[in-house]
Amino acid sequence: MCMTFKLPPAADGTIVVGRSMEFPMGMPTKLAVLPSRHAGTATLGSGHHNPHTWTATNGIVGMAVFGNEAWLVDGVNTAGVSAHVLFMGAGYCVYRDPKGDGSDISELDLVAFLLGTCATVEEIKVAAASVNVIGLDPGMGFVPPTHFLFHDKTGSIAIEFHPDGTVISDNPVSVATNAPYLDWHLINLGNYMGASPQNPPAKTIGALTIEPSGQGEALRSLPSDYSPASRFVRLFNFIQLADRAADATGAEQVALHILNAFDIPTGLITETMGGKVVPEVTVWDAVVNLSDLRYAYRPISNPATYVVDLHTVDFSAPARSIDLEWNGAFTPISI
Amino acid sequence: MCMTFKLPPAADGTIVVGRSMEFPMGMPTKLAVLPSRHAGTATLGSGHHNPHTWTATNGIVGMAVFGNEAWLVDGVNTAGVSAHVLFMGAGYCVYRDPKGDGSDISELDLVAFLLGTCATVEEIKVAAASVNVIGLDPGMGFVPPTHFLFHDKTGSIAIEFHPDGTVISDNPVSVATNAPYLDWHLINLGNYMGASPQNPPAKTIGALTIEPSGQGEALRSLPSDYSPASRFVRLFNFIQLADRAADATGAEQVALHILNAFDIPTGLITETMGGKVVPEVTVWDAVVNLSDLRYAYRPISNPATYVVDLHTVDFSAPARSIDLEWNGAFTPISI
Amino acid sequence: MCMTFKLPPAADGTIVVGRSMEFPMGMPTKLAVLPSRHAGTATLGSGHHNPHTWTATNGIVGMAVFGNEAWLVDGVNTAGVSAHVLFMGAGYCVYRDPKGDGSDISELDLVAFLLGTCATVEEIKVAAASVNVIGLDPGMGFVPPTHFLFHDKTGSIAIEFHPDGTVISDNPVSVATNAPYLDWHLINLGNYMGASPQNPPAKTIGALTIEPSGQGEALRSLPSDYSPASRFVRLFNFIQLADRAADATGAEQVALHILNAFDIPTGLITETMGGKVVPEVTVWDAVVNLSDLRYAYRPISNPATYVVDLHTVDFSAPARSIDLEWNGAFTPISI
Amino acid sequence: MCMTFKLPPAADGTIVVGRSMEFPMGMPTKLAVLPSRHAGTATLGSGHHNPHTWTATNGIVGMAVFGNEAWLVDGVNTAGVSAHVLFMGAGYCVYRDPKGDGSDISELDLVAFLLGTCATVEEIKVAAASVNVIGLDPGMGFVPPTHFLFHDKTGSIAIEFHPDGTVISDNPVSVATNAPYLDWHLINLGNYMGASPQNPPAKTIGALTIEPSGQGEALRSLPSDYSPASRFVRLFNFIQLADRAADATGAEQVALHILNAFDIPTGLITETMGGKVVPEVTVWDAVVNLSDLRYAYRPISNPATYVVDLHTVDFSAPARSIDLEWNGAFTPISI
Repeated sequence: MCMTFKLPPAADGTIVVGRSMEFPMGMPTKLAVLPSRHAGTATLGSGHHNPHTWTATNGIVGMAVFGNEAWLVDGVNTAGVSAHVLFMGAGYCVYRDPKGDGSDISELDLVAFLLGTCATVEEIKVAAASVNVIGLDPGMGFVPPTHFLFHDKTGSIAIEFHPDGTVISDNPVSVATNAPYLDWHLINLGNYMGASPQNPPAKTIGALTIEPSGQGEALRSLPSDYSPASRFVRLFNFIQLADRAADATGAEQVALHILNAFDIPTGLITETMGGKVVPEVTVWDAVVNLSDLRYAYRPISNPATYVVDLHTVDFSAPARSIDLEWNGAFTPISI
Repeated sequence: MCMTFKLPPAADGTIVVGRSMEFPMGMPTKLAVLPSRHAGTATLGSGHHNPHTWTATNGIVGMAVFGNEAWLVDGVNTAGVSAHVLFMGAGYCVYRDPKGDGSDISELDLVAFLLGTCATVEEIKVAAASVNVIGLDPGMGFVPPTHFLFHDKTGSIAIEFHPDGTVISDNPVSVATNAPYLDWHLINLGNYMGASPQNPPAKTIGALTIEPSGQGEALRSLPSDYSPASRFVRLFNFIQLADRAADATGAEQVALHILNAFDIPTGLITETMGGKVVPEVTVWDAVVNLSDLRYAYRPISNPATYVVDLHTVDFSAPARSIDLEWNGAFTPISI
Repeated sequence: MCMTFKLPPAADGTIVVGRSMEFPMGMPTKLAVLPSRHAGTATLGSGHHNPHTWTATNGIVGMAVFGNEAWLVDGVNTAGVSAHVLFMGAGYCVYRDPKGDGSDISELDLVAFLLGTCATVEEIKVAAASVNVIGLDPGMGFVPPTHFLFHDKTGSIAIEFHPDGTVISDNPVSVATNAPYLDWHLINLGNYMGASPQNPPAKTIGALTIEPSGQGEALRSLPSDYSPASRFVRLFNFIQLADRAADATGAEQVALHILNAFDIPTGLITETMGGKVVPEVTVWDAVVNLSDLRYAYRPISNPATYVVDLHTVDFSAPARSIDLEWNGAFTPISI
Repeated sequence: MCMTFKLPPAADGTIVVGRSMEFPMGMPTKLAVLPSRHAGTATLGSGHHNPHTWTATNGIVGMAVFGNEAWLVDGVNTAGVSAHVLFMGAGYCVYRDPKGDGSDISELDLVAFLLGTCATVEEIKVAAASVNVIGLDPGMGFVPPTHFLFHDKTGSIAIEFHPDGTVISDNPVSVATNAPYLDWHLINLGNYMGASPQNPPAKTIGALTIEPSGQGEALRSLPSDYSPASRFVRLFNFIQLADRAADATGAEQVALHILNAFDIPTGLITETMGGKVVPEVTVWDAVVNLSDLRYAYRPISNPATYVVDLHTVDFSAPARSIDLEWNGAFTPISI
């Protein structure tokens, strides 16, 4: 599952992005830093040679999986570009075959390469077109099907792995969830128009006045479930309807409130994986301030939201990672 | 708006309650303590005499409004009973006329009286039947229409002010939102059955296999909007579907995740009050652990959740209140 | 299941009513006439004595069941009042105990009595209050739970059998389906406001214009299923939205088109009765012109709609009935 | 708007197709016959030369528009292939530029050509690929955007006019409505699975038993509105759920009942055309029996359904047309 969105600019111009990781628990994830001069070499599967290599110009903070700081599923670079790797199931991800010509890179290394070397989504379009993305299993037991979303202060793009080629496209709504492809979701938005924050007016039939019992009814035409299509529609509408924040602090909190509204309490969604029924949960949420270079996250079993200020990070030091604060408590207060 | 719910017991027996205050901003609210020997006198409107008086036996921690520690709209007592005052619009609240016989109490004082003097919801039923609840404007410009919900470790009850009398009833689902009356909502649950956490199976039509694009689709029959009726249905189903937590910490976090899922980002709902369009928001959430006597809350513009451990509160000291931490920041972390 | 509705007046003042009989197949039903001077005696169950008796002043045409012309489940009288007996399941029908004082009448005879003796719904209110309605099994194997709806040119009423007494009330929306009681449905209408015949406007996000792919989207907030609550909401909204017809012919056809829209193709709904899964279908539809005294009906397996002009019926002749034209064919045409 | 569907075979193997014409009133339409040896010449717009020509081998009965028997928007041929021209708005129809090489044919002539010369949908695939479909205004004031659906006893196909070329594809679900393209709709079906004819089971919460108030609730996850996407989903599900008929008569009536369920009462949907608000209605329905070569239709303001038995038509006579029976009355009956 998973989703990402970019809010319209706050009144002071701050650009904030949100992202959730919706998945069964169990993917080893750490908070990672890649240095600004990171020398990258793509990991390819056994038997494949001549991997893509690069030297970064931007530092990166983000979420790395399976013990490799360069295997980033989310993150932001020092140029203010964020990356979000989202699941893409139901057959909507077909990676390329290796070419062996130095352009091969796995989906696991793609964020490190693109955030490391690009300062805008326009640069990412060019860089992404220059590599050949193959699929690699980081240790999940299968090659994870994905699509990639990137936001910068002026644009958003998607990278999808269609059967007949990699598709790199603008994402005019700055929203993404999962399968199917972005163009399908954009058409689907047209089916769910007219949501309104204001209740419809009362209606009088003879002596009877019919009126809503409370507020919030004019969102009824939005879909209620957690399918990728429905979350895309709700997320787009929520972002359109949400008030613009005044400043960075406000915008970060708007993003967190929107992420709240899509939080999946454990048990509401289950899937059968390897014969076992496992809950799909919101493993962590991230709030990324592209203007002020802040990367914030909230783990599932910790009510606190943590933030890394990229200005305080030593991007000249080697790549490193730290555990997430999976467990946390409410903040005690006395009265 | 507003809602409350009680989770099924955690595996270790812990009972946790959730509550949200959904309203336009602007009601002055503080965290308050009423002492265990509080001597209460109901505030009546001008011209009314002989108010109800009582002496408490339980201390209370909760949310007090309009500068009066005894005007509680939410709280828990030292006996493990929680109280939740929810809005009840659309004409579904008719307070009683004053009697002047010593039984008169306003809706503002009712929580202080009932939590102060009762150790169970069964005791509250009796005590509530002994008083005459009149309506009083705490400074809002109108008498706020309300209904009252109480939870203890074994039961939940509702107090509603019907035109022809106050109705005190069991709440078998331990869920409440707003208008109309509880019996209407209980019937409505029957219209929304069959929600499931597991996707329906794929279907094959000739060469075509039709399958969901992701998880979470089998909740589609639930309503999506924020009307009281729809929130009641969704809340009931979420509580039925959510996994049981192992222990107190887990149960408190389940409650917080469910509250997240009902969080209203500013702008999604607006109403016209006094000629102005104002947003209706989730002003604060509360998580109440009835087993361990903990009262936790999260203000709208603060990502942290604060908790008062009632065992650490001096209930022999006079009534007092402190400001809520309206503003808060993410927790800085270094890497 | 079942439903009934009265259209707003046509431009020429004609008042037309619609009704569907939604039920499993198998209830023996005929088109029946009761004479205008019909001498009625209520059928009571064995062991009960002193049934209610009456002498009619109005003739009746309608649908009679189980071989008894006086057991009418639908019909219209010569004064322009229509009657519609609808199923009322889920425990929402509690008939009275027999009194043996001459006021006892079964639900099966109630239409014959009320249409026979009353010229308006106001008269029906009085007459219905004068009898004691007990339940009788006409041969179904159980006493059918029901409620009764009546329309005349100026009003509509409902008779419901609540646990604590028979409730006779105005039906301000002139719509009915099944359980629960009418007051519940009237409140529920307030949850489904804002349906519109016009598509919402297109929305532009940067270079993207989002627009509906076709017409009819602004009815999305209406419920889609066939539960009694959902059919009530849809029916009310359809009647509000439907164009007024110019005249009697037009109004009768509007009623038929609305009935079409609620037609249940066999297999869409099934229920388990006596251990067998049986389809619930629209057994027949009726269109009743209260102004011109026409009673029309369409059986499930016949595409034709038949009409009885009450002005052509000999109401001085004895009670009689004829088979419905269950089977029918399309009308052949040559070219 | 508009829709078409093919039912699964009746128990006796009969194949029946349904189709509705949903549009504002006003397109001149007649019932037409094209002879089996029809010599066709495509009408091109002024200034275009060298139209496609053909000689038919099959006779055709269907609906012809704007006074030209060869301009068919619906029909069936003597080989048992049916054709259905459906509106395709919102930019999803881009006709080809004329080539002037003898392959040019307008959308108006396409049915006459394909039904005239092809005995199966497989033959239609080949024939459709051999022509160049340009757009022509028959007198509507604009070139009507369309897509074409064909059914035979074993298959169904769609012809769509994509911006980059005409797409001829199998239609595995034998259902069509309007925009967007078929592949979008097929994906969308995966979002609406799990509809069931049987109510979900009752649920007990303490002393409370929650159960549906009536039948038909388990279709709630289907969409309720009339947008093309929603009608596609509902139509597909209705056809999957509907009982198989025993024979031809039964199957034709199943098709009519399904068409009933999608009937649009006048006023429920309006659109603004040329500055005027006009209702979109179900102008006529057609039921086509491919096995027995029967073409039936029901005009909007006539409750009767008419049928042409193709075995009785003289296909050696010249092309001809007759007016539809727009006005009709209920069938009088005496009792």
